[in-house]
Formats: sequence, structure tokens, C-alpha cells
Amino acid sequence: MRSTPHAEIFPAHTPAAAQVFTTVLSHGPLTRLEAGRRAGLSPAAVTKAVRPLLAAGYLVEGGDPGESAVEEARPVLGRPASLVRVNGERALFVGVKATGDELIAVLTDLCCRVRLARRAPLPDRAPGSALASIAGLVHELLAHAAESDAPVAGLGIAVSGDVDRAEGVVRYSPFLDWRDVPLAELATTACGLPVTVDNDVRALTVAEQWFGAGAGLSDFAVVTVGAGIGCGLVVHGRVVAGAHGVAGEIGHVVVDPAGPPCHCGNRGCVEAIAGDAAIVARMREVTGHQVPDSAAAVALAHQGLPGAREVYARAGEAIGRGIATVANLLGPERVIISGEGLAAYDLFAEQIREAFTTAAFGSAARCDVQTRPLPFEEWARGAAAAAIQTFITQNPASGKG
Amino acid sequence: MRSTPHAEIFPAHTPAAAQVFTTVLSHGPLTRLEAGRRAGLSPAAVTKAVRPLLAAGYLVEGGDPGESAVEEARPVLGRPASLVRVNGERALFVGVKATGDELIAVLTDLCCRVRLARRAPLPDRAPGSALASIAGLVHELLAHAAESDAPVAGLGIAVSGDVDRAEGVVRYSPFLDWRDVPLAELATTACGLPVTVDNDVRALTVAEQWFGAGAGLSDFAVVTVGAGIGCGLVVHGRVVAGAHGVAGEIGHVVVDPAGPPCHCGNRGCVEAIAGDAAIVARMREVTGHQVPDSAAAVALAHQGLPGAREVYARAGEAIGRGIATVANLLGPERVIISGEGLAAYDLFAEQIREAFTTAAFGSAARCDVQTRPLPFEEWARGAAAAAIQTFITQNPASGKG
Repeated sequence: MRSTPHAEIFPAHTPAAAQVFTTVLSHGPLTRLEAGRRAGLSPAAVTKAVRPLLAAGYLVEGGDPGESAVEEARPVLGRPASLVRVNGERALFVGVKATGDELIAVLTDLCCRVRLARRAPLPDRAPGSALASIAGLVHELLAHAAESDAPVAGLGIAVSGDVDRAEGVVRYSPFLDWRDVPLAELATTACGLPVTVDNDVRALTVAEQWFGAGAGLSDFAVVTVGAGIGCGLVVHGRVVAGAHGVAGEIGHVVVDPAGPPCHCGNRGCVEAIAGDAAIVARMREVTGHQVPDSAAAVALAHQGLPGAREVYARAGEAIGRGIATVANLLGPERVIISGEGLAAYDLFAEQIREAFTTAAFGSAARCDVQTRPLPFEEWARGAAAAAIQTFITQNPASGKG
Repeated sequence: MRSTPHAEIFPAHTPAAAQVFTTVLSHGPLTRLEAGRRAGLSPAAVTKAVRPLLAAGYLVEGGDPGESAVEEARPVLGRPASLVRVNGERALFVGVKATGDELIAVLTDLCCRVRLARRAPLPDRAPGSALASIAGLVHELLAHAAESDAPVAGLGIAVSGDVDRAEGVVRYSPFLDWRDVPLAELATTACGLPVTVDNDVRALTVAEQWFGAGAGLSDFAVVTVGAGIGCGLVVHGRVVAGAHGVAGEIGHVVVDPAGPPCHCGNRGCVEAIAGDAAIVARMREVTGHQVPDSAAAVALAHQGLPGAREVYARAGEAIGRGIATVANLLGPERVIISGEGLAAYDLFAEQIREAFTTAAFGSAARCDVQTRPLPFEEWARGAAAAAIQTFITQNPASGKG
């Protein structure tokens, strides 16, 4: 995170306060008692954490506006327990997801509700040009944000690859062909906002944890299938970032040492078998057809060309093995499969499931493996969630992000 | 955990109190301020947590007895800040590690310092007979414990395989050939103590986290090489148990789908290439010699028999790939390699390192991979640590053990 002189200051001076806020954000409106129960804190600690957040307008008393639901939870004895909820209007955030050829951006409120979404092509991947494209899109959203009274308190940018969030540096992004780009610093200068840079799948995982299929789970994984094969891991209730910024690299789990070469230098990585480029290349080999892109590959498989379905079967097997590896090491409650590759899901669903079941060790096979289509706007929302996360944990005292 | 009517009650009524106690246990003696800093709690929360623990004699004021070190840390200004430490004499624990043919047991104090260690053969693996052997060894240690005033407050039993600690059930232990053995319940009856059953590598990992090469690290892994290939994972400061009781199964990460069959039903698992039995079997094939056990296999490799060293090279490559998979998914700060297989370490150290470096993705290669010989008494100590952990988190309010 890079702070600008204009940065809003969030009045959460302890990790507990940030935790209470996050709990109310993802599960609210809640009574103080319920917030404490979910956050593992005493009622006194919650009351203490909530007070400055109410005073500064980040939390408000009462149920959701516009909802007819009970405003107050009335206990059997004693005073009615009032609900607290996040005041979404209090601050705005921008989230940007960059693919190899497109930018997807959203403007959200503090509750991470999307107010506006925009897409723009990424004509040039060189860091300087990409940054100009990002800044253009962000300024477009900021112009809309200016119509509201709420300050824009942060920008999140999500890119694939090895991203060091703490340092704000993209160490290696294969699809953008970037190495050691200090994106947070550059984007802070270009956009005039505090910037959080994160791996795109980890950012999506934050959104899934707060509002999606991971809500309420302490251990789950998001596996994304598409140009790359990525994985976001939540263990003990927190997204795994890795001591050196690398984690969740399911795409580079080797499932077949005799398999095709991968851009990472190894052979038979999940991504080298099941990533879009690998599927397209293999489809060309097998069918002898021109295969311009993955949509064409899917079409050939659906037409039933000899060998075409086997390309997907092999990809599904690699993905299923990769997921089994995650399950054998971490034993998550749920694995959520998503990504643009779901367009071909009917072609490899069976092999994913079969390979997972075969390779899962003992009770690890009980893991709930499910699919969930999430458009790129949801990934951009994840980038905004990462910015919100930085905002609410920005105090130096709160080292437990 | 199964409680007996005689169980000691630990007066930690909140997760924070258990956390403060664990912090003082592994890092103490500490000032309240330092304990709070390390546990991420306010000084007020620490004072509140410490009070009943001092009153009940689990914590005491002052530095280590018998040490000439300063008893008080004197700040530049104000009153001297007094240290608190765990009173080891306050309670005793028994830890047992069961291998396929031997039991190793230790009697420890509340600081998990070993007072006495005993070994006994395990002549029969059938659960009933094994339980009788365990009870015999435990009663031997209890007789010694009776010479002290301190109550024995818990028994930890560590076995390899799929162990559901919460339920106290050994679901599947290949080396003992057990399936669905309710070991905690049986051992509680046989030994008259509250029993914690855990996977042996996870128990060892607790000991490494509290007192060993993992102390002070929030993310590390212990990889054990020997009869089985196991892995204990600490993520965000806590040992990963898995939602369904399975985690850390590095032994069943498939590194070569064309490799030898594994007892789990797959082919080319790390354990099927690098476990003791796999090495011995392969050594027989390659050399044509009788190879009674792994010591003989090591000897043949040291003699330089044609092909013998390659058996270890292949095992080292499989282990290195397994470790790289852990690093790519979780990005730990450190991986500690241990286990009885270290006896052959000179034979495959180079291949482990080479395969790890090759297969680690980007910055994941920065992980500090080190070896550390830990005798089975250290594993038994891990079982005692698991029992201490249960003891200090036994209060139903503390769900974060």
C-alpha cells in the first residue's frame, strides 16, 4: 500500500477493530454480541472497537436501509440489541483486473457493492502503456465518483502471476510479460490514490470469502481455469499470501513429468496441459485444424472431431489431480472452480471429478468440489475488496491484515 | 478430547487466555507487554488473561528458576516490568508415539520438558493388543509421575495416517493397518486420562512450532522422511488439520503417474518412490541382493553397487518435487526435513535440493529448506504438546485451539 497525502484515515487502531469491521461487512447487519461471537471477541472488545467506527460514520446503527427486515433483534430479556452495519456511502473504491488484452474496472462502495463497471482494451502490454490505459479507465470511474459526496479511498489492481502485495511489486506476470514492475508506486502517481496490488486469483478469493461461496468457511480454495490455472487459498480464515509472495500456484504443480513443456521451465505442469494456450496447441496437433483460440477448440470438441475430446479429457484429469493435491495438503471444506474456462466445463467436468476422487487421500475426498461462473467484473470486485482490506487494516498497529 | 471425571480444569475462559499462555510457554519468561505484542493483544487483555492463571499456579512471576539471568526487565522509566513464566511443576503430561513396531513414550512437565523417556516393542498391531501395550507403558510413566505432587493432566498419542483429532478416531493408519479405531475413547478407558489423538507428524509440528526450528515463524512445514513421507503445515501461525481431518499428505502427492503403485491406490506418489519400503523393494530389483531393511539399502548404496545410488537419487527427486509443491501452494518461510530417513540423507540431499529448486515457482524458491534430526522421543514430545494444547484450550469457549 502506498499512501498519498489525501488518504482517508480509517479509525481502527487495533487488529480487533479491523476484524469486527470485516465481520460486519461480510455478515452484517449484526448485533454486537453476534459480531463478537463470529470474530471470537468479547462483547466489551466489540463495543470498544465499534465506538470510533460509529463516530466516524463507517458503521451505522440499524438494519439495512430499504429492507423491511426487523431493525432490532429483540432478546427475550433486557433491552433490544441494536444492529450495526457498514455505511456503504462513507467511502468508494476502484478495482481493476488486467488480463493480457483487456482491463475490467468497477467502482464500488465501502460494502464492495458495484456501482459502475467498465471495460477497455489493453492495446499494449508494456508497463508504461498498460499503466496509461489503467489510469484512463480509473479516471473515467473517478469522474462518476465525483458526483457523490463520498471520497474514493483506494484503488486495487489485480494481475495474474507472482505479485508481492506487501511491496506493491509485480515480480513476474507471464500473460503481461512483466518482471519486477513496481505497479503500486507507478499507479499511485498516475491515479492519485492509495494502491493495493494483488494476484488476481487471491483478490477474487477475498471477494468469495466476504460475499461468495466461501462466506462462513474457514478453509476453502478457489481454482480458476482459463488462460492460466490459478488458485486462491483460505486457511484458518485468512487468504494465504506466502512468505515470499508466492502461493496457490496450482498451475505449476507438476502432474506429469513426461508432459509438455511449460513457460516456467518445467514439464507437465497443470497449466501446460490445461491452460487455454496448451489446449489450443494440442488441438492443432491432434486435429490438424487451424485453431485460432479456445472458443474454436471448444467448438471442435463439440463437433466430435477424432481426438478432440481427449484433449479436454486430459486437461480435466490434470485439473482434477491439481485439486486433489490441494485437498491432500490442506483438506479444505470446499473447492470452488471458476474462470473463463468454465465455458468448456461440460467437456472435462467428468474427468476433473474422477481424477480428484481417485487422487484424494482418505477423507480429503469429502471436500465439496463445486463450480461457479464468475465474470471478470467479479475479479475486479475482488481487486476493490483488496483495496478495502488495505484501507481497514492500514493502521501500523494492525499487522494481521 | 475425552474428559474423565478427574480432569484438571485449566482456568482460561477465553481464546485470548489460551493464546497468552501458549505465547509465554513457547517464548517465556516474558513481560506482559511483550506477551501482548507477540500474541497481538492489548496490555489490558493480557493482564486480564494472566490473573486467573497466576492465581491457579499455572503461571508464576519471575524469570526461570536456577537461571542467573535478570529476573526483572527494567525499563528506562517507571517501575520494573515483572516477567511471567509457565510453572512447569503445576501439571504433567504423557506423550506416546506409535510406529509400526515400537512405542516411544515421554513424561513431560507443563513446559513440555521431558522428565523421563521409555521405549517398548509393539509385538502385535491389532488395536486391542496395541492398546494394552500403550496402557502398560503409560502406567509405567504414571508410576514415576506419582512420586511428584503434580497431577498428570493429559495423554497424547501420535500415530501416522488419517487421524481425526476432534473425534479422537484413527480413520486409516497404513503402518498399523488400522481403520476407524476410536483410539481416544479406548485409551481414556485404559489409562484413566483425558486423551488427545493426533497424526504423528502434526504432533511433531506442534513441538517444532513451540520449541524447535519453527518457533517464531507463522508459516512453515515439517517434512518427515522414513517409513512414510509426512508433512505438518503451519499456516497463519496454526497447524493445519484439514476440514475432514486430512492435511499435509505430501506422501500422496503424485509426482509421476507412470511410477510404481502406492498402497493408497494411485501410482507414483512420493511415498511410493521415496518411502522406506519403496526404496528397499527397488533396491532388490536393481541389485538382485537380499535387502532386509533400509539400513541394508543404505549400505548397498554406500558400497557403490551399480544402480544403487540411482534408487536414492530418484527418491530424492520425488521428495524435492513434493516439497516444491508445498512451496508453490503455500509459500512457507521454511521447510524442515526430518525423520529416520535422514540416515540416508547424504545419498539424496543433492537431488532433493535440485528438484526443489527446479520445480519451485518464482520467489517460492527462496524458502529456507533445512534438515534437522529429531529422534522419536521428540515425536513423543509432540504428542505431549498436543495433550497440553488440548488442556489449555479445553474450555468450550475457546474454539480456536
